[in-house]
Amino acid sequence: MAAYDHENIFAKILRGEIPSTRVYEDDETLAFMDIMPRSDGHLLVIPKTPCRNLLDATPEQLAAVTATVQKLAKAVVKAFNADGVTVQQFNEAAGGQEVFHLHFHILPRQEGVAIRPPGKMGDFDLIAKHADKIKAALA
Amino acid sequence: MAAYDHENIFAKILRGEIPSTRVYEDDETLAFMDIMPRSDGHLLVIPKTPCRNLLDATPEQLAAVTATVQKLAKAVVKAFNADGVTVQQFNEAAGGQEVFHLHFHILPRQEGVAIRPPGKMGDFDLIAKHADKIKAALA
Repeated sequence: MAAYDHENIFAKILRGEIPSTRVYEDDETLAFMDIMPRSDGHLLVIPKTPCRNLLDATPEQLAAVTATVQKLAKAVVKAFNADGVTVQQFNEAAGGQEVFHLHFHILPRQEGVAIRPPGKMGDFDLIAKHADKIKAALA
Repeated sequence: MAAYDHENIFAKILRGEIPSTRVYEDDETLAFMDIMPRSDGHLLVIPKTPCRNLLDATPEQLAAVTATVQKLAKAVVKAFNADGVTVQQFNEAAGGQEVFHLHFHILPRQEGVAIRPPGKMGDFDLIAKHADKIKAALA
């Protein structure tokens, strides 16, 4: 496995060098909106400290991130009156990973609505509205 | 969200009422092979205690399960010389969940090999061989 690259996009988001639409953070973790949402409200949860993925995460990083994943899964159900939640976590390129900083995808789901194909940029105003709903659900 | 159903398939597997190909267990968690593998070595990790999914799991159940998920993700990389690992976790039917006992899917991935479509029963001899590889990697 390659070493952690401190110039990956999420490292830049953590340092504030790239903007992101944040919905939650604590000392250990950050949650922000995916800019290519595959469902309305699609967000990402990451640790604030460097690790590439599940294969090199420390137990502490993993515990902190999964606690936030659960918190946000519950929040999106409330925010969107979602019928379900799909969680995905990709490790290495062959596993589907595109940004090499550990992250969990949280996708709010509605009955009968399929996940959209990947790679399509979302509408930023709509993403901001969805973020506001999630923040309100967390408040 | 519906109540936990003690007659779900994984509850029966935990009670030994239905056979399964186990690859790992500890006091809190069990890992066993998916009988409809979407990649070679596809396995599931579950808590031994009842919860429906991520939306009702206790912090203790979640922490125990994710620690085992990490352990098994590393094991399948070793067992299959995998190039990556895909982790999926579905909550409620709209989220993709079919058995209502919390579970994480772990799919070993090889470069250039797509995940197979769902719902196709695997070859039991081959699944047993894959389980042996995973157990050897854990030993």
